[in-house]
Amino acid sequence: MTTTKKEAADAVLAAKVRLGLTWAKIAETVSRPLAWTTAALLGQHPVPKDVAEQVGDLLELPADAVAALQLQPTRGALDSPVPTDPTIYRFYEVLQVYGPTIKELIHEKFGDGIMSAINFRMDVERVPDPAGDRVVVTLDGKFLPYQW
Amino acid sequence: MTTTKKEAADAVLAAKVRLGLTWAKIAETVSRPLAWTTAALLGQHPVPKDVAEQVGDLLELPADAVAALQLQPTRGALDSPVPTDPTIYRFYEVLQVYGPTIKELIHEKFGDGIMSAINFRMDVERVPDPAGDRVVVTLDGKFLPYQW
Amino acid sequence: MTTTKKEAADAVLAAKVRLGLTWAKIAETVSRPLAWTTAALLGQHPVPKDVAEQVGDLLELPADAVAALQLQPTRGALDSPVPTDPTIYRFYEVLQVYGPTIKELIHEKFGDGIMSAINFRMDVERVPDPAGDRVVVTLDGKFLPYQW
Amino acid sequence: MTTTKKEAADAVLAAKVRLGLTWAKIAETVSRPLAWTTAALLGQHPVPKDVAEQVGDLLELPADAVAALQLQPTRGALDSPVPTDPTIYRFYEVLQVYGPTIKELIHEKFGDGIMSAINFRMDVERVPDPAGDRVVVTLDGKFLPYQW
Amino acid sequence: MTTTKKEAADAVLAAKVRLGLTWAKIAETVSRPLAWTTAALLGQHPVPKDVAEQVGDLLELPADAVAALQLQPTRGALDSPVPTDPTIYRFYEVLQVYGPTIKELIHEKFGDGIMSAINFRMDVERVPDPAGDRVVVTLDGKFLPYQW
Amino acid sequence: MTTTKKEAADAVLAAKVRLGLTWAKIAETVSRPLAWTTAALLGQHPVPKDVAEQVGDLLELPADAVAALQLQPTRGALDSPVPTDPTIYRFYEVLQVYGPTIKELIHEKFGDGIMSAINFRMDVERVPDPAGDRVVVTLDGKFLPYQW
Amino acid sequence: MTTTKKEAADAVLAAKVRLGLTWAKIAETVSRPLAWTTAALLGQHPVPKDVAEQVGDLLELPADAVAALQLQPTRGALDSPVPTDPTIYRFYEVLQVYGPTIKELIHEKFGDGIMSAINFRMDVERVPDPAGDRVVVTLDGKFLPYQW
Amino acid sequence: MTTTKKEAADAVLAAKVRLGLTWAKIAETVSRPLAWTTAALLGQHPVPKDVAEQVGDLLELPADAVAALQLQPTRGALDSPVPTDPTIYRFYEVLQVYGPTIKELIHEKFGDGIMSAINFRMDVERVPDPAGDRVVVTLDGKFLPYQW
Amino acid sequence: MTTTKKEAADAVLAAKVRLGLTWAKIAETVSRPLAWTTAALLGQHPVPKDVAEQVGDLLELPADAVAALQLQPTRGALDSPVPTDPTIYRFYEVLQVYGPTIKELIHEKFGDGIMSAINFRMDVERVPDPAGDRVVVTLDGKFLPYQW
Amino acid sequence: MTTTKKEAADAVLAAKVRLGLTWAKIAETVSRPLAWTTAALLGQHPVPKDVAEQVGDLLELPADAVAALQLQPTRGALDSPVPTDPTIYRFYEVLQVYGPTIKELIHEKFGDGIMSAINFRMDVERVPDPAGDRVVVTLDGKFLPYQW
Repeated sequence: MTTTKKEAADAVLAAKVRLGLTWAKIAETVSRPLAWTTAALLGQHPVPKDVAEQVGDLLELPADAVAALQLQPTRGALDSPVPTDPTIYRFYEVLQVYGPTIKELIHEKFGDGIMSAINFRMDVERVPDPAGDRVVVTLDGKFLPYQW
Repeated sequence: MTTTKKEAADAVLAAKVRLGLTWAKIAETVSRPLAWTTAALLGQHPVPKDVAEQVGDLLELPADAVAALQLQPTRGALDSPVPTDPTIYRFYEVLQVYGPTIKELIHEKFGDGIMSAINFRMDVERVPDPAGDRVVVTLDGKFLPYQW
Repeated sequence: MTTTKKEAADAVLAAKVRLGLTWAKIAETVSRPLAWTTAALLGQHPVPKDVAEQVGDLLELPADAVAALQLQPTRGALDSPVPTDPTIYRFYEVLQVYGPTIKELIHEKFGDGIMSAINFRMDVERVPDPAGDRVVVTLDGKFLPYQW
Repeated sequence: MTTTKKEAADAVLAAKVRLGLTWAKIAETVSRPLAWTTAALLGQHPVPKDVAEQVGDLLELPADAVAALQLQPTRGALDSPVPTDPTIYRFYEVLQVYGPTIKELIHEKFGDGIMSAINFRMDVERVPDPAGDRVVVTLDGKFLPYQW
Repeated sequence: MTTTKKEAADAVLAAKVRLGLTWAKIAETVSRPLAWTTAALLGQHPVPKDVAEQVGDLLELPADAVAALQLQPTRGALDSPVPTDPTIYRFYEVLQVYGPTIKELIHEKFGDGIMSAINFRMDVERVPDPAGDRVVVTLDGKFLPYQW
Repeated sequence: MTTTKKEAADAVLAAKVRLGLTWAKIAETVSRPLAWTTAALLGQHPVPKDVAEQVGDLLELPADAVAALQLQPTRGALDSPVPTDPTIYRFYEVLQVYGPTIKELIHEKFGDGIMSAINFRMDVERVPDPAGDRVVVTLDGKFLPYQW
Repeated sequence: MTTTKKEAADAVLAAKVRLGLTWAKIAETVSRPLAWTTAALLGQHPVPKDVAEQVGDLLELPADAVAALQLQPTRGALDSPVPTDPTIYRFYEVLQVYGPTIKELIHEKFGDGIMSAINFRMDVERVPDPAGDRVVVTLDGKFLPYQW
Repeated sequence: MTTTKKEAADAVLAAKVRLGLTWAKIAETVSRPLAWTTAALLGQHPVPKDVAEQVGDLLELPADAVAALQLQPTRGALDSPVPTDPTIYRFYEVLQVYGPTIKELIHEKFGDGIMSAINFRMDVERVPDPAGDRVVVTLDGKFLPYQW
Repeated sequence: MTTTKKEAADAVLAAKVRLGLTWAKIAETVSRPLAWTTAALLGQHPVPKDVAEQVGDLLELPADAVAALQLQPTRGALDSPVPTDPTIYRFYEVLQVYGPTIKELIHEKFGDGIMSAINFRMDVERVPDPAGDRVVVTLDGKFLPYQW
Repeated sequence: MTTTKKEAADAVLAAKVRLGLTWAKIAETVSRPLAWTTAALLGQHPVPKDVAEQVGDLLELPADAVAALQLQPTRGALDSPVPTDPTIYRFYEVLQVYGPTIKELIHEKFGDGIMSAINFRMDVERVPDPAGDRVVVTLDGKFLPYQW
């Protein structure tokens, strides 16, 4: 039985807790962006061989898991079309409430097209605020115009 | 038959095209943030009376539509759980691919809790880039810790 | 074409705004509990003839709407199995997170059975709190033991 | 194979029956609120290390289960969008019948916003009543106003 | 625009209330079983011409509605696969809890086969009971054995 | 790994076939109603300790299964919202065709309310008929009026 | 507003009842197979101009309906994935119970491939039988082998 | 762990390939109709003891599988409401396109009622045709009139 | 009431039939690619003002429809997640059977990434073949590599 | 426990990575078209015995897997009706945006009918382009006219 990317991700999570590591530390070790590293180790990106091996060393993963990290994923991480976890659901709610607003503003500022989710990077930051610190998520994708 | 918020939004869209206005111009007229103004006129926020009237004057809306803009909405703007419009879908895809990553990073940086979608603001910007301009969407919500 | 309970509810909402009334004022006029009155006028309970007529006078409703308020409803007010409006969704989320907890505690305190949603009353209160006022919703139903 | 939070919850339930314990007794032992304790041991909250260890001692859980209790959960406990268990369904029915009523009354008493399900506590009580004891569920969350 | 069976049913319901009639009275007038008459006038059976005309006279229905009552229906009266109305839902819940029990007992008493829902009659009765009157629904269908 | 109620039910079914027993015989042995016994052993009711032990003796069940029979179930026995097994489906079809009829007749005979599915008993009988024996299912639940 | 194929089908059904015609009579008039004619007039096939005009004359249809009959349809006549009408549902049930059997036998008799639903004809016959007449539906489609 | 009907069906399929047998040969051995035999061995009918044993001998099945073949099935063989396998889907498509046609013709030839899927037999034949051989599926069920 | 893009598309289809035009002729008139023109007039692309006016002249459309053609669409043309029309369904079936094959081959030839559906053109051709002419659909989109 | 086609496909994928092979190399070895070979080894076509054995030799597969490759598949490779993997989703999006366009053009060029997905071949090519190489997918199926 081969190790799946899901099982490799579970091994990463378990080792991370056992060894008291953080995503920040792991990302630093492999010299990759924090969010990319997290997504990749959760199974949403193929991990280059050298990065997989560095992670394997750091997290003491078995060879099978290191191999699985390198596989091309079939992406999609939500259990159901509407996520139930509150932390993830809030972003779905943002789409329900502000989706058409984002669409209108993209069209007003760029014309007909989309924000790429492929040529794309994102970040999650903690911004101090006296009224309570804020979660600031930046989604940053290349604009792709409809082009025949 | 009363005018619904959906019909008022359609009237706004039609007038905006007919009069050659932009969301930026409308937001400036009512001195409100761009994204809030767009969302509110699309029916996702109740519009304060004075703002509704300014919009009504600018867009030459009938009184019924001005009244409808002020109603408390039942929010939710997607036709189905998974949006079909490509411009909106890309944000759903971001959730599918990066949702658990966002969750992991929020928990790593803040502990157990969520980004509020209520005490929340967002912005859509066009960032010039020689390799193709980029759509940068900033989601900015107060962190709310699980607190019994 | 007869007036439906949904159309009667819309007429109530429109008149309530036009006349500057509150649910509290309407409930007081008909001497009924606040939450029951709201639910009934939103179409979820049949309204007794005398109450319907008092409401009709207060809200200046047409006879058709007054008649529709008295009809036996087919209950169920959510547009889809999972509500999209954030104010209502939070209660669905409570079920997702705490549903089995409520079940465990009902069984521990009462044995096998349910809280009736028929022999049932509820209330929504505003409780002042220095850290921010609180919404307190009380669900109060008769315990019904499984009984063959 | 690591122990999941679901498996840890099953171990808790089995031990609780085997040892003849109640949720009340467990909550008392760890000096935490009853409903919070139940939800946390059912896998919906991360359990602090010391509490997990106390529970582990009381319920004679293996180390793996004690570790799993401390993991950050992906929340959501219903098997399907509409719950089938009658005890849980009644609360879904309350949402179907009274959801818009709750929404109207929150908006009338607080303005536009929601009851937080994060800054939130709840309780289930048995209230004696000559016509049959009553289940009283109190949902108590901080009001969060829509705030840009 | 022709009158649909749904519109004819609505006309029946409206007239029944306006004229203060009961299903029992209507069934007696047309000399048909109570439950059959109710189902047929709600649009789930084609009504024979003479019965439709008697109903039309009694309820003062327009000719179009009398014609529509006679049409062959496309049966199915629930708005969604899972009914939301509590009075109807309880019967769905019975299926959820006791469906396999009914199946086991039919197979034990008859062998492999089904209860026909076509060669079928049903009744709803009020049975007095000092602990609270009871709703007794009798479903009575011919057994059909699997027969190649 | 603890034994689940589903596994205990499977063990009951297997033993029942192996030992050539019937539900009637089992119900007689434990002196409980036939339909209740069947439902309980299929996992839809918690079985009292003494009954579980009698069943365990009769069916030569292992101790784990006897323990599982006593657990509080999470009820709901259909694989999907619409059952596919023809014997069970016919009852769902009855709901599709006659659900609103049942609702109308309950309201006509009792007023606004429901048939309880908790304070409830049912029976399946074989009624001889020269035109083919009939399956008669009696659903018998206490009427619960809507009562605030 | 143009006439849709659905409205044209409704007009056909209404006229057919009003004029006391049968599908057999209509099919004979236009010299087309019975089942094809029925399907086409119900909106599932484009009707050739001369046939549409003959039908229009026979059924006294307005010109708009005659035009609509000729449009290319977007096919698909079931309201939901699982049909609720019992007469249609039985065929869905046949698929649930015998679908894999049909697949096995097609592959055993023909190899890998399908029965075409395009190069296809069907018929519904009444076959007398002393034990009760039988509905015999013949589905007759060209075999199409998987062929690269 | 008992052998399920699904596992018994898998064992049949594997043995059938290993031994180079056909459904026709198996059906002949047990002197039963071809389609019935196929459906029964695929788990959709209970197999009589003697037939199960003959099949067990022919296919060299273990005793557990022979026992499982005799169990009463919970019928329903499609993975999802809409089948994805092209060979099976074509029959679903026939229902989508011709379902209402079949319904109309049954009602025209028999009156209100259904084709039984219980008192039912079917056959799949290969009919030679110079333009390509044809799959002819005959569905043959007793007509059941709606009868109160 | 403004004219929607859907109503404008219906007006185009009706006029096209009435005037005996083809998509090829319309595309030629406006000097645009055939498939783009068809998609745009069916409401899936915003039509530039001059093109909309040429189409309006050719098809004798009212001014409202000409305006609607120019609106930014909310894209998505299937009625349900799984299309029921057989001509469209076959392409969905291709995805069911060959989707992962296409994915494998894209990754083998290009690495990790996607075919853009935005920077995209397509064509439908009729290719003569003695064994029956063939439909050849060419999907041609820019490769977009995953790029952080 | 027999090896399923899914497990055989996983074995193929694992061996392909371990041995550093490509689909192109495998297809060349068995002298079959690239896309057919990929689809067949992913479990969507039965693989002829000699091809399965060549693949088994090349990929060092166990005998069970070689046998499973030869089984007749139940086709359908998407996890849910709407695929979540971005590379596959783009083709679903093409259907959402251009499905009706493809349908219109097939009907304009061929008349009423479909592109066969059975008598069908496809190819994925990399076409160099100075503005970025392009993915060109060619779908090529026999036209099948609706033919009674």
